[in-house]
Amino acid sequence: MERPENCILVIFGASGDLTRRKLVPGLFNLYRRNLLPEGFAIYGLGRTELDDTSFRESMREAIHTFVKEENLAEKDVSAFIDNLYYQTMNIRDLDAYIEMKRRLDDISSQKNTGGNYVFYMSTPPRLFGPITEGLAHCKMNEDIAGESWRRLIVEKPFGYDLETARELNETLHKNFQEEQIYRIDHYLGKETVQNMLVFRFANGLFEPLWNRNYIEYVEITSAESIGVGSRGGYYDGSGALRDMFQNHLLQVVGMIAMEPPAKFEATAVRNETIKVFNSLRPIPENEVGKYVIKGQYTESKVRGEAVKGYRDEEGVPDDSKTATYVAVKFFVDNWRWGGVPFFVRTGKCLPTRVTEAVIHFKQTPHQLFGKPSEECYQCNQLIIRIQPDEGILMKFNMKLPGSGFEVRTVNMDFHYSDLSNVYVPQAYERLLLDCMLGDATLYARGDAVEACWEFVDPILKAWENDGDIKVYGYPAGTWGPTAARELFDIPEGDWRYPCKNLAEDGEYCEL
Amino acid sequence: MERPENCILVIFGASGDLTRRKLVPGLFNLYRRNLLPEGFAIYGLGRTELDDTSFRESMREAIHTFVKEENLAEKDVSAFIDNLYYQTMNIRDLDAYIEMKRRLDDISSQKNTGGNYVFYMSTPPRLFGPITEGLAHCKMNEDIAGESWRRLIVEKPFGYDLETARELNETLHKNFQEEQIYRIDHYLGKETVQNMLVFRFANGLFEPLWNRNYIEYVEITSAESIGVGSRGGYYDGSGALRDMFQNHLLQVVGMIAMEPPAKFEATAVRNETIKVFNSLRPIPENEVGKYVIKGQYTESKVRGEAVKGYRDEEGVPDDSKTATYVAVKFFVDNWRWGGVPFFVRTGKCLPTRVTEAVIHFKQTPHQLFGKPSEECYQCNQLIIRIQPDEGILMKFNMKLPGSGFEVRTVNMDFHYSDLSNVYVPQAYERLLLDCMLGDATLYARGDAVEACWEFVDPILKAWENDGDIKVYGYPAGTWGPTAARELFDIPEGDWRYPCKNLAEDGEYCEL
Repeated sequence: MERPENCILVIFGASGDLTRRKLVPGLFNLYRRNLLPEGFAIYGLGRTELDDTSFRESMREAIHTFVKEENLAEKDVSAFIDNLYYQTMNIRDLDAYIEMKRRLDDISSQKNTGGNYVFYMSTPPRLFGPITEGLAHCKMNEDIAGESWRRLIVEKPFGYDLETARELNETLHKNFQEEQIYRIDHYLGKETVQNMLVFRFANGLFEPLWNRNYIEYVEITSAESIGVGSRGGYYDGSGALRDMFQNHLLQVVGMIAMEPPAKFEATAVRNETIKVFNSLRPIPENEVGKYVIKGQYTESKVRGEAVKGYRDEEGVPDDSKTATYVAVKFFVDNWRWGGVPFFVRTGKCLPTRVTEAVIHFKQTPHQLFGKPSEECYQCNQLIIRIQPDEGILMKFNMKLPGSGFEVRTVNMDFHYSDLSNVYVPQAYERLLLDCMLGDATLYARGDAVEACWEFVDPILKAWENDGDIKVYGYPAGTWGPTAARELFDIPEGDWRYPCKNLAEDGEYCEL
Repeated sequence: MERPENCILVIFGASGDLTRRKLVPGLFNLYRRNLLPEGFAIYGLGRTELDDTSFRESMREAIHTFVKEENLAEKDVSAFIDNLYYQTMNIRDLDAYIEMKRRLDDISSQKNTGGNYVFYMSTPPRLFGPITEGLAHCKMNEDIAGESWRRLIVEKPFGYDLETARELNETLHKNFQEEQIYRIDHYLGKETVQNMLVFRFANGLFEPLWNRNYIEYVEITSAESIGVGSRGGYYDGSGALRDMFQNHLLQVVGMIAMEPPAKFEATAVRNETIKVFNSLRPIPENEVGKYVIKGQYTESKVRGEAVKGYRDEEGVPDDSKTATYVAVKFFVDNWRWGGVPFFVRTGKCLPTRVTEAVIHFKQTPHQLFGKPSEECYQCNQLIIRIQPDEGILMKFNMKLPGSGFEVRTVNMDFHYSDLSNVYVPQAYERLLLDCMLGDATLYARGDAVEACWEFVDPILKAWENDGDIKVYGYPAGTWGPTAARELFDIPEGDWRYPCKNLAEDGEYCEL
């Protein structure tokens, strides 16, 4: 596998949780797989007062905690953390960037990294402006053609609505070119999301069926079984639509619905996904109630244990109208998908943790063996499981052994875990390597982010302005408001329920 | 499940092997499943001198031997064999039929079977004439409209070539209507063969791909791992083309290639299969060498044990040119299959016992991730396993987990045995019940048999007349003559080899 050119990774917000949990463990794994450059360093910046030594020790501990492996070779950990550095810094202090540059120049000549930098902004978005200003101030924002490169990794949220997303892009573009900007969406780092491209475009078997002629509807579910926990304060300002739908789930829609790209490279692939986003039929503000169902979990009992309702969570106002569940029906108005509804739902406190895309195929044009129904057999389904237990499941019909011709739905499946002995990297590991290699295929592009917000914005506006839009209460441990079933106007159309409702009591209600 | 009307099953050749091994055990299973009519009897006829009692005892033993089940309830066996009767008979003696009729009338009124009969001809074909004459002589050949029915089950071979097949049909039609004739092909009684209809026509997923646009070629293999054993004398007069290809394998071709029938019933389904047989592009006698490979197994060592060559088998002449292996390439000239080659092979002493149909799909029209090849990945395949371990296997391509986009072929499968607790009837059991119910869907029709012979006849003629046609020797335990690979003129086209060659030595040669 290709190793990146020598470079330094600079992390803003290095004392935060993401660095400990994901970035440093991911980089350590790359190191062990011999996929880090020969000359490499990690330079952490943060408000917390640390020096190189204490930062290294804290990262040693993080590696032991978050690299889930017994008998980690301490030798490897020690060799790896020797490449870590830290600077305590007030991010709004421009002088600090000069100091940073001085130290980085030293490390660069020592490690022979030739001025190549990845800047990782693991900070709240309000600091993206000051950071990029600071980098410009010390002249570290521009590529030096033919000599060295500078790349900027941006963590979500990429805006709070269409307006702030546009503002954010403007801020970033002030000092960086779009080609230098890597907007990380860890969903795109997941194997099964990437695999969708291979599954669709390396098989002659599925692509001919992948259109309005054969597909009745597409369903995407991302369910979490837990509630907001201690993050209620933060979550209440965001909600399911912003937190999951606008970014992760629309990216999955992009992968499922896109046309085959001309080549397999960042521009070509991302040009195709944005075509999908641009084809989303807008939901007018005054019709949001017809296409979008908003829910909030209420208290109930799950497996004998009482579960709090959302409004009773710490940091959540008693009259909060924030969605912990959202179900959206929409259309992709193009030749491939004309008339095929997409149903996408996501929620907290659902019966299980699962993310999957389900292609529901049409009935056969002629029913030789009787009409499909739940009792006898169903229409074909193809289920792409993103997590957990990544894989593919196909539901098709076979003859029940015995006399006569009774038909039954059976399963055929493939689990990624069956490819034993194959190392499955974590999303961050994959994405950090891609960025160092300059491959932005799996990163979100600015125009795509804005296109997604454009679709979501009228929904947010309607929720804000239209008092008639209902918030449905659903007992924690159930599959969300029953109203979400009513989005289907297809006979026998329904969501898949990969696991039964778990709530023992609790009430469906209007909040 | 439906139970047939009261009737008597009359077996000609009842002292033979088929009755012991298949018919009586199959009927016993139907009895236990409560699928035999309320009033029912089995009337055996044969040259061997037996009476009712000794026939019953010999069948009791047969049930214990061939119904593979521990702890058979002796009570059930005894109750069942009470319905058995036997008459020693010279089949060519017309008077004997009068005697038979007298006894059958008695049993009929005793059992209240109302004159319904199934006549099962488990005898060599030369006796089909005398038997049907005899039945006509005692006026048991015709249905009595609205009152009672008479059906005739005919065992293969249905002729030895086109001419004798036509003669046989003429003989049968002299005294029976085509609608009364049930030509048994036990292949059509196999679950997976029947399942092909359900698989194709109860799923929206496969049928759209089932044509020349997406399929590169179709492969059908029926391999036996054993040689002719003690049947060399019989086999040498028949050979692989007559023994397997003309009947069983062309029936499988019919199921795979047919158009969807208008209804699911005997006439509609059989009308569609005969359209396939009528679409087979004839192989002219002078081109047989180009389309058909003829092989004969030679001595070798398999798993350390010496295996005899065919010509050394008991009853086989030293210079026999009989095919123990045959591979045929042909086309189905219609809109669905135009230009798609079918490759069908069958043989004895191959590395394993397997019967399967493989649909080889075309390459994707654009190779985004590099060209398929054996090392990286292959084109999609759908494998319908008929025996053993009946099921469906799909080979498709997925992303190898990890960085980059490496593609690998993986498997997804469904085994009939996964439908646990479901009773899988044997072929004869299924077919006997169908005949009693008057359902001929899974029986071969006279015109279809002749159409198949029409296709096979020029091959037989060429083998007889053209001294230039080679007989290739293949060591027992290998996949047959290497020349069979040369039938493929598709880049990377080849047979599937579900199991490696097992021969340790032995020579490929021209015989």
